[in-house]
Amino acid sequence: MRTGERADWGSPYDEGVSEIIELCRRAREASYALAAASRATKDAALHAMAAALRDNTETIVAANSKDVAAAREAGTPESTVDRLALDPGRVDAMAAGLEQLAGLVDPVGEVVRGYTLPNGLELKQVRVPFGVVGIIYEARPNVTADAAGICLKSGNAVLLRGSSSAAASNEAIVAVLREAATQAGLPADVIQGVPGDRAAVKELMQARGLVDVLIPRGGAGLIQTVVTESTVPVIETGVGNCHIYVDEDADLDLALTILLNAKTQRPSVCNAAESLLVHASVADQFLAKALPALAQAGVTVHGDPTVVAQGKDIPEAKDILAATEEDYGKEYTSLDLSAAVVDSIDAAIAHIRKYSSAHTDAIITRSQSAARRFTQSVDSAAVVVNASTRFTDGGEFGFGAEIGISTQKLHARGPMGLPEMTSTKYVVIGEGQIRT
Amino acid sequence: MRTGERADWGSPYDEGVSEIIELCRRAREASYALAAASRATKDAALHAMAAALRDNTETIVAANSKDVAAAREAGTPESTVDRLALDPGRVDAMAAGLEQLAGLVDPVGEVVRGYTLPNGLELKQVRVPFGVVGIIYEARPNVTADAAGICLKSGNAVLLRGSSSAAASNEAIVAVLREAATQAGLPADVIQGVPGDRAAVKELMQARGLVDVLIPRGGAGLIQTVVTESTVPVIETGVGNCHIYVDEDADLDLALTILLNAKTQRPSVCNAAESLLVHASVADQFLAKALPALAQAGVTVHGDPTVVAQGKDIPEAKDILAATEEDYGKEYTSLDLSAAVVDSIDAAIAHIRKYSSAHTDAIITRSQSAARRFTQSVDSAAVVVNASTRFTDGGEFGFGAEIGISTQKLHARGPMGLPEMTSTKYVVIGEGQIRT
Repeated sequence: MRTGERADWGSPYDEGVSEIIELCRRAREASYALAAASRATKDAALHAMAAALRDNTETIVAANSKDVAAAREAGTPESTVDRLALDPGRVDAMAAGLEQLAGLVDPVGEVVRGYTLPNGLELKQVRVPFGVVGIIYEARPNVTADAAGICLKSGNAVLLRGSSSAAASNEAIVAVLREAATQAGLPADVIQGVPGDRAAVKELMQARGLVDVLIPRGGAGLIQTVVTESTVPVIETGVGNCHIYVDEDADLDLALTILLNAKTQRPSVCNAAESLLVHASVADQFLAKALPALAQAGVTVHGDPTVVAQGKDIPEAKDILAATEEDYGKEYTSLDLSAAVVDSIDAAIAHIRKYSSAHTDAIITRSQSAARRFTQSVDSAAVVVNASTRFTDGGEFGFGAEIGISTQKLHARGPMGLPEMTSTKYVVIGEGQIRT
Repeated sequence: MRTGERADWGSPYDEGVSEIIELCRRAREASYALAAASRATKDAALHAMAAALRDNTETIVAANSKDVAAAREAGTPESTVDRLALDPGRVDAMAAGLEQLAGLVDPVGEVVRGYTLPNGLELKQVRVPFGVVGIIYEARPNVTADAAGICLKSGNAVLLRGSSSAAASNEAIVAVLREAATQAGLPADVIQGVPGDRAAVKELMQARGLVDVLIPRGGAGLIQTVVTESTVPVIETGVGNCHIYVDEDADLDLALTILLNAKTQRPSVCNAAESLLVHASVADQFLAKALPALAQAGVTVHGDPTVVAQGKDIPEAKDILAATEEDYGKEYTSLDLSAAVVDSIDAAIAHIRKYSSAHTDAIITRSQSAARRFTQSVDSAAVVVNASTRFTDGGEFGFGAEIGISTQKLHARGPMGLPEMTSTKYVVIGEGQIRT
């Protein structure tokens, strides 16, 4: 048996297990058919799912309006309600996303490496699906279709656990997708919603051996819970405390353009910049331009004493707050920015090592040796030279699809596309070889 | 900050943390220098470590004799004492292992993929060390040098936690290796032993954010403990309930040769066969030969009713025990074998799905379609056609080094060599690109 299996969810031969375990088992069983399915079958299923979403727009929007009404009644902020709400345009976008997946190369079956051993054994390392993937996510119901599509294309049965605030929407979407998958000859159970309360989610997180990997998508609180409470392996996604370091050899105009883009183009996302570091030798010159520009863009700066002092001399840049230790470690996801002056590139690297979430960190410099030192010494999922942090994204990286951005080091790091949703196995072909 | 970090081990700015956390922090600090070290430096360190082991053979063997004496006094079985015992020959073998590592390609810096994006950004995915690796292992003190060498070559600082029964040996080896690493200019703290009781190990397992990955090496009990109690990501190794399926189209002589090799050549290891499945149409013919041959090789067969009945007709094959459900799920690591007759290849695949530990499973067949069906449908780390299961091994696969055999699906699966001891990062080079 797999280690940890029986202790956690009972013998595989047990009767009378819980609803969640039963659901996991059905996913496992369905995963065998999906793993063996050809790309043609999977793409046909994706097209059927897209068509079914469009055909059932009315039902889906009606279900969603119940969630929206309940959210408004509960006093949910309008920005959150907006993320929750579906209209025919958003349903169509979900369908288009599934069609796009159908156009991508199938990662399953790719030979990662292969050679013949001295004894004549032919060895191949081949991409295979994980098997059963659990996605635990918040708010936006479009994740339901998106995650279901990515899992299906990569050959994985999926267990979808959305937030209770989107329960009616998710239930409607899952029902439509399941029915559509069967039209392509796949078992409906390759896509399942996970019902129940927190205890049910806890059971899902402990279903080691039945669920191969869990991917949480959402805020830091959700990710923290899944990471600490799961015995199923987890791929951690998302938290981004991204830095921009303006080197002594930086083109300062270019630095300012990049900083403003990274901070303000879409401040709510994980690859937005949260912290600015400036080399002391260019601090006066850079901050004299940057502080008014940031103020004009609506950015609140939380600065170290040097930055605060500098701000006092610039009338357009008043209201600079004093940064605390906590500020440096923070993912604001708002128009806030921590800022500090550093004496050297090494001090910048040390600051990043201490405070960064290791998502994306950038240096602005004209110096080849500074760029080399920064990219070698900063150990983040993405290390950027002379460009915005906002490019760390599966779409921008050309992956065609993205299930999330891993900020951990095991299995996948950075944007995760279809290949990151697979494992591998070795296939060894012989003609009677034995070990002596 | 990294998710899960503060909750588990306090703020990175805290004073007065425990000895274990302090040790982890020193490893983290030392890991930066090691990650930046060239292959030449790392190979020089490996050679210095090998020379130092040889120079200090007497000290190491003397320390080991204390462990051996204590083990004998505690009534430890002589086979376990033998695994624990070091002599000059075994110390020399440890040194030779380190020298062999120096000859292997450095995985750090390998460009896994790279291309230029439409906007001109140059994207590279590059192998980087994990950072800090914890190894928790049992008995054999040679693992101390072996694991330290593999971690050093792959650029990782290592925290070594051996069993208390080898404490004196491990302490002596670690002291020698640390001193030798400094001769090549590396910080001694790239190699550290983890002292203390079970509470200390528990702290190590919870040091998420300070330790990047834990690798347990040992029996199922140890692995189970590490898997369930760690918040640090774990790579699970080792449990092998390996199957040999003799297909209806098998060359039966070849099948018997492979079965005997896989079961008896070294029954204590994880890639030894533990279970035999035979297609019903060749069962009489195959078992008539196999049961006496297994009996002669000292193998105790635990058979299903068909196998037991067949055994009764073969005088040389008496004493076949009735297999229980538990037998089918068991890694015996002894001269025991479960055996069952199946009606079809699909029944064999279903049996393997139910009971296999997904380490290594083999089919013996002359049929191309049976081989294809088996290799596609059996989802194990290694799936073998017409060869012994005993080949699933880093050395046999040509990796040059092996830290263990992963039976999980995340990050690494099957034998883990140097590349499996790394993560990757994306390096993105631009000239002012911003996102619009």
